[in-house]
Amino acid sequence: MNPVLIEVLRGSAVESRHAGALAIVDASGAVHTALGDIDRPIFPRSAVKLLQALPLVATGAAESFGLNDAELALACASHSGEPEHVATAAGVLAKLALDADALECGTQWPSRDPVLRGMVARGELATPLHNNCSGKHSGFVCVACLMARNAGAEPAEFARGYVAAEHPVMREVSASLSATTGMDVERAPRGTDGCSIPTFALPLRSLALAFARCGTGHGLSDGNARAARRLRQAAAIAPFMVGGTDRFDTRVMQAYGERVFCKIGAEGVYCAALPELGLGIALKIDDGAVRAAEAAFAAVTQALLRTEDELLHSYSHLQLRNWRGIDVGSLRPAQALNQALAP
Amino acid sequence: MNPVLIEVLRGSAVESRHAGALAIVDASGAVHTALGDIDRPIFPRSAVKLLQALPLVATGAAESFGLNDAELALACASHSGEPEHVATAAGVLAKLALDADALECGTQWPSRDPVLRGMVARGELATPLHNNCSGKHSGFVCVACLMARNAGAEPAEFARGYVAAEHPVMREVSASLSATTGMDVERAPRGTDGCSIPTFALPLRSLALAFARCGTGHGLSDGNARAARRLRQAAAIAPFMVGGTDRFDTRVMQAYGERVFCKIGAEGVYCAALPELGLGIALKIDDGAVRAAEAAFAAVTQALLRTEDELLHSYSHLQLRNWRGIDVGSLRPAQALNQALAP
Repeated sequence: MNPVLIEVLRGSAVESRHAGALAIVDASGAVHTALGDIDRPIFPRSAVKLLQALPLVATGAAESFGLNDAELALACASHSGEPEHVATAAGVLAKLALDADALECGTQWPSRDPVLRGMVARGELATPLHNNCSGKHSGFVCVACLMARNAGAEPAEFARGYVAAEHPVMREVSASLSATTGMDVERAPRGTDGCSIPTFALPLRSLALAFARCGTGHGLSDGNARAARRLRQAAAIAPFMVGGTDRFDTRVMQAYGERVFCKIGAEGVYCAALPELGLGIALKIDDGAVRAAEAAFAAVTQALLRTEDELLHSYSHLQLRNWRGIDVGSLRPAQALNQALAP
Repeated sequence: MNPVLIEVLRGSAVESRHAGALAIVDASGAVHTALGDIDRPIFPRSAVKLLQALPLVATGAAESFGLNDAELALACASHSGEPEHVATAAGVLAKLALDADALECGTQWPSRDPVLRGMVARGELATPLHNNCSGKHSGFVCVACLMARNAGAEPAEFARGYVAAEHPVMREVSASLSATTGMDVERAPRGTDGCSIPTFALPLRSLALAFARCGTGHGLSDGNARAARRLRQAAAIAPFMVGGTDRFDTRVMQAYGERVFCKIGAEGVYCAALPELGLGIALKIDDGAVRAAEAAFAAVTQALLRTEDELLHSYSHLQLRNWRGIDVGSLRPAQALNQALAP
């Protein structure tokens, strides 16, 4: 069993508990902090979109099709489906002379409630462009179009089925995961992600290593090192694209710029790079809770950067309010997490 | 640490785990099944709405104001804010010559998505009647109005502030919790619930005992025994009122009638009575996950009723689909739960 990382208080009593594991590792693989089982494979889900976007830059596809910072940041995003996200994804596809029909991520309504309500009020329908993964998938289609050009194939036809593990695009993505994590993902437990691409279960230790490498460039090929740097810079320039209004990842990168690259994944995963410390972070909440993943990552970042930052504190000690706006409780880091992070 | 009760599979690998505790007890307090720590106090939240509604019947308020089955079932509900729920709560208040202004539960949008979207499309706003607790609160206002009549006071004025622990209505509700659980709730850890009334942390053992008592009448005053029976019958006659379209509690009570009274509570709680077996059930998922609470309760009910029922199986082994409708995984009861429930 992993230790409790985050407690949920109601009044002064603990109402709920979130157990999990945390790995903080440097680019040589040396462990800075380990809490819980960091060698058990976990599905990183969307927390590794940075790693999955490396081929977009490393293959030259991004340069070839003239992708800008916003478009590169969106390739690493789980966005909220706001108009700027939708327009940016559509813009990438337009550069390929394609449209939303090329996306195989499925249709999802925006997670940002006022945006969804506006669409409903206007009688609009969601499209694959609103899917939180539409930027990542637009990036996959870019890679497919470059491959098609090099092979003399028709782009849309070549791209079709790009979500399958055996498609050339997804092979490139899997190779990028293997190269950065140091694990052969072909031998890892495999599942299907929310957006229909494969997701591979990997140890937190290896995921943290991959992010330490992406933050420093050490241990990566020149191409991947340059790609990681380019994508981190793009996210720092256009953090809104990585999440959206009031989203934690966006707010952290707005506040810290290139000092922090961070990304949430479904089912309670967080991965991040802190380049100035040469560290990568990977954590998984056992039960999959987003609130606990955000709180734990906020506590980790506060401790590592030795900051009393109010934004991070507002997530590590999230206030809970009821329907009348009354404070009814809060989250807090549990003892095991505080002890592991103590200087 | 409590044992894992429910596992979440992605492909064939376990992606997430939900630990928790389970108490199954008879009306004498004898333990049928105990898994995890059943003596640690937990906040039961909305899972004890049946217990909180006992004064509505036991004081004679329900009879005095002519409440029907649907209105009594709604008093035990966490409803989805559908038009029938809203109309029924408004109907209770109309019998008191009051309206939504009397409710102190706060405003909440309907949880049923198509209902919410319909309101947004028509430009309507949510009211306290849409709050999932509006039926319970309408019941509290009924009790207040009877008390006001007996005291010769103005009803709306007497009712005001009924959510406070020291208000005569809430004292009656707390007394009902104490009488059924056998615990002095005045000495229990206290929090504020989502709908602003007090919630008291009580052991699962005591909560299961209260539901065994409510299912059998044993160990209760005549008034509470009659009230519990009346409310269970009302829920069996009008199960839609306790939840709503596609809601688990509603579907179970539609299928099983008076054989099962069950109620979910926020933060992963389930309480239920199985009168034919003389048993009460109380469980809490440590991390607060609804999906796991429903799955665990479905597994428990399948085992206790020795049924292969498809409805219960569809929750204990809930299929997970992604944005394109592809099966990506499922829930399943973990070994500890299966072993505890084995015949």
